[in-house]
Amino acid sequence: MSFVPIPENSDFPLENLPYGIFSTADKCQPRIGVAIGEHILDLNAVAHLFNGPELKNSQHVLKEVSLNSFMGLGPKAWTEARKTLQDLLSAGNKTLEDDVDLRKSALVLQSEATMHLPAKIGDYTDFYSSIIHASNVGEMFRGKDNALMPNWKYLPVGYHGRSSSIVVSGTPVRRPIGQTRPNDAEPPVFDKCKLLDFELETAFFVGKSNSLGSPVSMTEADQHIFGMVLMNDWSARDIQKWEYVPLGPFLAKNFGTTISPWVVTMEALEPFKVPNYPQDPEPFPYLKHADDYNFDINLEVSIKPGGSEKEAVVSRSNFKYMYWTMKQQLVHHTITGCNLQPGDLLGSGTISGPTTDAFGSMLELSWRGTRPVELGDGITRKFILDEDEVIIRGHCKRDGLRIGFGKCTGKVLPAISL
Amino acid sequence: MSFVPIPENSDFPLENLPYGIFSTADKCQPRIGVAIGEHILDLNAVAHLFNGPELKNSQHVLKEVSLNSFMGLGPKAWTEARKTLQDLLSAGNKTLEDDVDLRKSALVLQSEATMHLPAKIGDYTDFYSSIIHASNVGEMFRGKDNALMPNWKYLPVGYHGRSSSIVVSGTPVRRPIGQTRPNDAEPPVFDKCKLLDFELETAFFVGKSNSLGSPVSMTEADQHIFGMVLMNDWSARDIQKWEYVPLGPFLAKNFGTTISPWVVTMEALEPFKVPNYPQDPEPFPYLKHADDYNFDINLEVSIKPGGSEKEAVVSRSNFKYMYWTMKQQLVHHTITGCNLQPGDLLGSGTISGPTTDAFGSMLELSWRGTRPVELGDGITRKFILDEDEVIIRGHCKRDGLRIGFGKCTGKVLPAISL
Repeated sequence: MSFVPIPENSDFPLENLPYGIFSTADKCQPRIGVAIGEHILDLNAVAHLFNGPELKNSQHVLKEVSLNSFMGLGPKAWTEARKTLQDLLSAGNKTLEDDVDLRKSALVLQSEATMHLPAKIGDYTDFYSSIIHASNVGEMFRGKDNALMPNWKYLPVGYHGRSSSIVVSGTPVRRPIGQTRPNDAEPPVFDKCKLLDFELETAFFVGKSNSLGSPVSMTEADQHIFGMVLMNDWSARDIQKWEYVPLGPFLAKNFGTTISPWVVTMEALEPFKVPNYPQDPEPFPYLKHADDYNFDINLEVSIKPGGSEKEAVVSRSNFKYMYWTMKQQLVHHTITGCNLQPGDLLGSGTISGPTTDAFGSMLELSWRGTRPVELGDGITRKFILDEDEVIIRGHCKRDGLRIGFGKCTGKVLPAISL
Repeated sequence: MSFVPIPENSDFPLENLPYGIFSTADKCQPRIGVAIGEHILDLNAVAHLFNGPELKNSQHVLKEVSLNSFMGLGPKAWTEARKTLQDLLSAGNKTLEDDVDLRKSALVLQSEATMHLPAKIGDYTDFYSSIIHASNVGEMFRGKDNALMPNWKYLPVGYHGRSSSIVVSGTPVRRPIGQTRPNDAEPPVFDKCKLLDFELETAFFVGKSNSLGSPVSMTEADQHIFGMVLMNDWSARDIQKWEYVPLGPFLAKNFGTTISPWVVTMEALEPFKVPNYPQDPEPFPYLKHADDYNFDINLEVSIKPGGSEKEAVVSRSNFKYMYWTMKQQLVHHTITGCNLQPGDLLGSGTISGPTTDAFGSMLELSWRGTRPVELGDGITRKFILDEDEVIIRGHCKRDGLRIGFGKCTGKVLPAISL
């Protein structure tokens, strides 16, 4: 138990302790914080208390403006930091609890903080690892019999995304303009995006780096996975359809990607491990692992329609529907020798569950716009309209323990004038 | 004329002055340098001499370890820096010529320097803008009648690449291992890449940034283009073929991309402007520009086969065969709102000329391995073998003026053992 009050059903109990970057009105320099209940522990103020063998001589990484260096230290340092934090924040530990001045400078209310991106993201990769999502999209565009491409079950299909346009939750996203071809018999047009969509995803941050030319083996993969965030991979479906052949999605995705500010560590998620998704055919040996590395994370998407104050849940999915594990994604990413660096972000791909109310995008929920999605009060949506806010939430729950992600939210601004 | 000796046919006369990052044995800190003849002018040593209105209060950017901040200042600062450099290095200007100590510390022999990447590359994008290359590849894989995809002449097709694996000329590149499917009737295999290829490209560095949600207009495009380098976009053709549907090339490209160390500025290239490639259909208004922004840059690829000391030229192409201009690539990249940042790198795509000896990849030169390429002494290649070195060179020449890029070279190391 912590001496910091933890409200019932909080996403951030003592067992979670996610990392983020925040600033406050009186101290605008971004710094590392750890969420606890409704507070943030400012690591700048307590860095000198991290005196274990791994961090004693690396306290400076806790005072940086991003998490990159801390992520790069690897799992021994992460475990030690978690232990130190749990000790410091536990009821009965006097260091922080009884030092009124230190407590005052080190504990900040989340409501008084501005959150920033947790890391300087060097490279961002997005996978396509939910079999239900890939099958849905495949069925829509190629028919049920050819839904999955031949490579899909042999390797975690992925592509390089755009880092510069990744924004932190709360940042508005502007509806893009661009080329689309609404009618295949006619030339393309230049217009506002008409089929703006969200994609319900999670993403993980790379911890330890590997060097160029040296693939990461499966046995070492977890040392390279620091923690997870929620992600909304905003997508302009009409722009995507016209541009993506043969080199993949480009402008349809790079106008904004929203992530939640708190990075939930793999250690905090450990109690929620569940069996991996059954894989048939068996993966190549380099992609095989016997241990569970799948997680029971409840995911939920709500839309708050423009002009309304009422959110409507449009999807309830779960991370456990992922076909490929994060370890498999990471190992595959490096197999040709690609170097990953601390702070790189690897997205899951849209996570759709097996029922129609568990799909992870409007494309699937409205089945290409053929089935309007009810938001209550007679409001419906096929795709996302201007001023709509899309809110993704995620949490794990078991035996009274709740580990949450907070939220990942973004409001759509109207397009610039053409 | 410069007081620094410029050998005949040098790539780096007083009219060029490309920027790079270098270090020396006695001073290992990377710093900005400008190539002049066989020397490098160390900007750290002369930064205090940049006293024009644009740079007087920004001299610190000339002392950084990368070119990003300087690139971000924009064209007025670039022009002023060029003028200052040309003055300083001109015969008759006493500031540097007569100050023996300053000269000694400021001029370093290129042969005694180690070159580094010119910028911290935040994001890297590769286009596909040579119509001859796109037609060749399309013809091989889809037949002559469907060679170009329907979108190709409406927009500069491009995709996000991997920044972390971009290396500077001279860095060896390891042959990748990965999944391929040599026989479509059988399952894929896990093996060394058998069809390793180069791609003859150029790339440009972004100068001024634009903010997320604000597309760059065509009239402002050139303010965002700092200068160009040569690029070898190494490609694993067999891995690419199996993985790239539907999200584009991924591991087939991210094991290494080599660029030349010297960034030749757009001002240095100005005298070599030639008419743009004729475009039919007419591009959308946002992509249209009347002024010439095409360049007559001779490009040449040589292979030095493993074990041999003799280079053989395998391709002679030219940048002027590009269908889409760099301004069009940049404007298109931002049209949906994507933010570009100083130091971002945008690649041309493979630049193939109209004749079979002007193709920009082994895929095309050997026409999918059906026509062995002669390297002399009875040596032939269909694709690149271990220990082969691939060397790209580029230069402009007109009326006695030669502006060169130096070289972009890399040797292939054998794959790690399976």
